Amino acid sequence: MLTFIGLGLYDERSITVEGREALRSADRVFAEFYTSRLVGADVADLEAAHGVDVEVRDREGVERDPEPILAAAEAGDAAFLTAGDTMISTTHADLRLRAESRGIDTRVIHGVTAQSAASSLTGLQNYRFGKAVTLPFPYAHGGEDVPGSVIETIEANRERGLHTVVYLDIKVGTGPSGPDPDHEEYMTADHAAGLLADGWRDELAVVVARAGSPDAVVAADRLSVLAEREFGDPLHLLVIPGDLHHVEAEALVGLAGAPESILEE
Amino acid sequence: MLTFIGLGLYDERSITVEGREALRSADRVFAEFYTSRLVGADVADLEAAHGVDVEVRDREGVERDPEPILAAAEAGDAAFLTAGDTMISTTHADLRLRAESRGIDTRVIHGVTAQSAASSLTGLQNYRFGKAVTLPFPYAHGGEDVPGSVIETIEANRERGLHTVVYLDIKVGTGPSGPDPDHEEYMTADHAAGLLADGWRDELAVVVARAGSPDAVVAADRLSVLAEREFGDPLHLLVIPGDLHHVEAEALVGLAGAPESILEE
Repeated sequence: MLTFIGLGLYDERSITVEGREALRSADRVFAEFYTSRLVGADVADLEAAHGVDVEVRDREGVERDPEPILAAAEAGDAAFLTAGDTMISTTHADLRLRAESRGIDTRVIHGVTAQSAASSLTGLQNYRFGKAVTLPFPYAHGGEDVPGSVIETIEANRERGLHTVVYLDIKVGTGPSGPDPDHEEYMTADHAAGLLADGWRDELAVVVARAGSPDAVVAADRLSVLAEREFGDPLHLLVIPGDLHHVEAEALVGLAGAPESILEE
Repeated sequence: MLTFIGLGLYDERSITVEGREALRSADRVFAEFYTSRLVGADVADLEAAHGVDVEVRDREGVERDPEPILAAAEAGDAAFLTAGDTMISTTHADLRLRAESRGIDTRVIHGVTAQSAASSLTGLQNYRFGKAVTLPFPYAHGGEDVPGSVIETIEANRERGLHTVVYLDIKVGTGPSGPDPDHEEYMTADHAAGLLADGWRDELAVVVARAGSPDAVVAADRLSVLAEREFGDPLHLLVIPGDLHHVEAEALVGLAGAPESILEE
């Protein structure tokens, strides 16, 4: 049996009660933190809180050499942990398909995702979000500051009045000059706002910092203003609103400090 | 203090560990189940599992008469519970804004949402979903079988190659002939597939039944085929895929029983 368990967004208590029970009863526990990580807990915290040994795998150890994980799932109950929800970006769908094709039962125990939190914390309605994008570090795509595909997605959403979640790049284990096990870099929201402000100086945007943590910050303002602020520890993301319903505009003013002028727009 | 706590998708164990701690330490606990509900647990189950008294409010008691909730949050620690995530559709943003404007601290402890689970269980990538829609019961919108706005949204997403989550109508406390406290009706996925198959007989769709539960079902097939099947207890939703990446098509075949012909399309 292979159970994929989402750890949720922040620390060892962001997992669901059901997930914790499955984790505690597993014979072996694997985890990866290269797609995302928990900012409020490290591996030792997880091990101590749940009374388990956690075997952390890098990308190579999941995607190219999944055999030890599959063998453990064949021999007993194996759990595979990630931050957020394990399956949300199909990153691990391949591992699940491999297990199924070997006759290993699989199950997903969901975790809270940044996508849900972005809607929930900003007061922007989940129905009114279009396709999401990721803003990469300029060095990671080797092109201009903001890839054309990011701008096209935001504009296509706005033509339909829809909001866009902009995930910010995470580089763990790979730096500007290639593989580097010690490299850990998270794009900050002010940096991202600065990149986007080049074309959209006066556009409204919403920063969500540390979603799911007790000190989550939500701040709405013009991109050029957000670019000059600081939002503390990662993880950050941005939302670029489309058309705003009245309740959404009120939420941005009341909960995120947006300029009151947006109520008249 | 007013803490909004998402219960997640299925039963009393779908809440996060953090949510459970906040719930247990609250002085008073309010809940509403008219926007959604937990299929695997009733109020008595929640009360027994968490050792609290839960005061359930109907829509009127939240939206028109929030005073008792606000007064409790002013006098001590009040928790407000919903299925999924409390803030995901801005339904309760108004309550949060009222509290904040009275100087009451508020906090959101997130729950797993159907939106996340739809992506996670189907293997369809969360980045490749467009705007979501809700398919209402025909009697609830008084028009044709499928409202034009639903069709337009699905088509606008597909033009961009994007998937669409189709939430299915829930009617609790309101029936075909108006308010009715005993009315409880959940649109099933086969019913929804039948409505949509009128225009899109051969289109591929994916049923997700009981997301977040131990017996979640995921089934991919043509709409006209899905319309003839049965998927058991609620809640159900549908996903109408846009363009499929190869891994997504493999996931639909391997995890959802889609016809293998989609691998060649």
